[in-house]
Amino acid sequence: MNAPVNLETLEVGFDVPAQPGMDEADIQTPCLVLELDALERNIRKMGDYARAHGMRHRVHGKMHKSVDVAKLQMDLGGACGVCCQKVSEAEVFARGGITDVLVSNQVRDPQKIDRLARMPKLGARTICCVDDVANVSDLSAAAQKHGTEIECLVEIDCGAGRCGVTTTEAVVEIARAIDAAPGLRFAGIQAYQGAMQHLDSYDDRKAKIDVAVAMVKDAVDGLKAEGLDCDIVGGGGTGSYYFESTSGVYNELQCGSYAFMDADYGRILDKDGNRIDRGEWENAFFILTQVMSHAKADKAICDAGLKAQSVDSGLPVIFGRDDVEYVKCSDEHGVIADPGGVLAVGEKLRLVPGHCDPTANVHDWYVGVRGGKVETLWPVSARGKAY
Amino acid sequence: MNAPVNLETLEVGFDVPAQPGMDEADIQTPCLVLELDALERNIRKMGDYARAHGMRHRVHGKMHKSVDVAKLQMDLGGACGVCCQKVSEAEVFARGGITDVLVSNQVRDPQKIDRLARMPKLGARTICCVDDVANVSDLSAAAQKHGTEIECLVEIDCGAGRCGVTTTEAVVEIARAIDAAPGLRFAGIQAYQGAMQHLDSYDDRKAKIDVAVAMVKDAVDGLKAEGLDCDIVGGGGTGSYYFESTSGVYNELQCGSYAFMDADYGRILDKDGNRIDRGEWENAFFILTQVMSHAKADKAICDAGLKAQSVDSGLPVIFGRDDVEYVKCSDEHGVIADPGGVLAVGEKLRLVPGHCDPTANVHDWYVGVRGGKVETLWPVSARGKAY
Repeated sequence: MNAPVNLETLEVGFDVPAQPGMDEADIQTPCLVLELDALERNIRKMGDYARAHGMRHRVHGKMHKSVDVAKLQMDLGGACGVCCQKVSEAEVFARGGITDVLVSNQVRDPQKIDRLARMPKLGARTICCVDDVANVSDLSAAAQKHGTEIECLVEIDCGAGRCGVTTTEAVVEIARAIDAAPGLRFAGIQAYQGAMQHLDSYDDRKAKIDVAVAMVKDAVDGLKAEGLDCDIVGGGGTGSYYFESTSGVYNELQCGSYAFMDADYGRILDKDGNRIDRGEWENAFFILTQVMSHAKADKAICDAGLKAQSVDSGLPVIFGRDDVEYVKCSDEHGVIADPGGVLAVGEKLRLVPGHCDPTANVHDWYVGVRGGKVETLWPVSARGKAY
Repeated sequence: MNAPVNLETLEVGFDVPAQPGMDEADIQTPCLVLELDALERNIRKMGDYARAHGMRHRVHGKMHKSVDVAKLQMDLGGACGVCCQKVSEAEVFARGGITDVLVSNQVRDPQKIDRLARMPKLGARTICCVDDVANVSDLSAAAQKHGTEIECLVEIDCGAGRCGVTTTEAVVEIARAIDAAPGLRFAGIQAYQGAMQHLDSYDDRKAKIDVAVAMVKDAVDGLKAEGLDCDIVGGGGTGSYYFESTSGVYNELQCGSYAFMDADYGRILDKDGNRIDRGEWENAFFILTQVMSHAKADKAICDAGLKAQSVDSGLPVIFGRDDVEYVKCSDEHGVIADPGGVLAVGEKLRLVPGHCDPTANVHDWYVGVRGGKVETLWPVSARGKAY
């Protein structure tokens, strides 16, 4: 189910939306397109930033779910490895050759714990998060059963309001349990502030991260007092990485969306008040769509609806156009307001999706284009790997 | 890419969320579960209704994207065939053995028209919709090239505001062009009022359908005056099928959601003011999820977020529980308000998704359960078949 794919055996249309060498105009729609020049510039830029600030960058693979994109981030961007949110995703990255994989999430189901404990046998350093001391014995038993080592981070809820503990006492209690458990190694702290990444204002984001940094610093100090050093203090996303990088306490970033960008993230503002998709990062990720009906003069219907994207963070934006607007999304159709009647049936448009992660998750393929030609196809390797 | 799957070769966890024979408690989460008894009752009920009212039922395959569910609807529910929204979906149904397939949508891309024209060679009666006379010559040329016949319905926009023409004059013009075109056969009218299906009030829905019926009746009469008979007058969904069935003008229904039900559809009211998921239809379609963190006393975190569902029509509802509530959905997590602290880590819950169609579209498998045991696994055969 995860064997290398021989593209040449695949039929354009039924199996794949395109083949390498094809003109971009001939790609079947709707599908995902990566503008490779922009993607590579984003990846290099974040890699340079992390290096200049003495930070490791563990790229967030849950965003793209692609072994190929992760390898590009390691090759061009100097990333140290991958984080992801599911054991099933981690297995895909490990089987795909990524040798340092963090499941930045809790693993509680007995079968998933068993699968996690087998991951080092695939050649991957295997790390997960813990927010409950009751989890430690289960992880330890599985690691011992398989003769492997699982590294564990204690997860701090520093504002996202999901998993994670909220006091240094709880961090220390769990860390000590991990440290004492055979088969486990205490590796540090996971402290990703997910809830603030999309706040528009730079100052509002900074205020939230200041709280997180204080919590994390207190926990690191508390652990040190117990003789427990943190190899990893991880967190930081596309809306905050400059804060964690200069905090003096975090040492690993976990950015995802910077590589692709999307419409919702793009609207947040940098410290000078500029949208981050107008200078800081480039749009590299698009849904290619096509006009399929224009039976009303002022309205075009395109073929990218809810089956081609997630609209949880708003509707997509039509890239490079201000004369037409995507105004409604139903299962299979997008309605485009076209007051000037400028669109023609068959015309293709690039949409910037509202939210990149769950949009990538509905597609099987990335079509990589450069200079108007299809250069490569990459499977969305871990798509569907939820369970 | 669409060969029959040998389940026995697949690994629970990495490849599939379950295997037949397993207890429901051992299914890996998050994944889709079909309660087979409820599904079969829904399918039989709609089949009986259509038969009693002299209507054909062409089930909407875009809802479930499953060859297996479609075959069940034909076997148990007497469905005449399938409709779907994409050529790529239609190919999956035709290759899977469905012999009567309507693409209830426009097909304008030259490659997709070519693929459509080849479909009869797979053994399937092939029907599509037309809302632009300029489309007729392209369809005709492709059918002639492949020596096949494409049946064409003229699409009327009877209120959904997407594809389709709005006057009898336009219907007649397109129908005459189809009738005159070699390789094509004029087969009737497509008139699905999608926009009203989710209106809460029965009377509001009826008012919208009355408008649609009047438009369709005028078009049928206009066509008859030109000597053009409609083999198919198709439309009708889960929120309206009783109106089309008794209209005297429609002869085919195209219901989808009735078979699975979802939280958004379930809230609409029948003629007696009762929710349609409290008597008319049963919830047969669930996301099975698991509590994976409970680090705060009043809040449980489950493993079904945006990668396991679409929230375009609202958050999921926890089935059979009124003591806990799914209140927030992020990429990989659901936040469940648990004021009484009654949930335990590892506990599994069934979620009724907000919207069944785009939720099915993010999963690879349906796990069919009966009496607490896994009876079957069905692939979501046409998932990802968007292009």
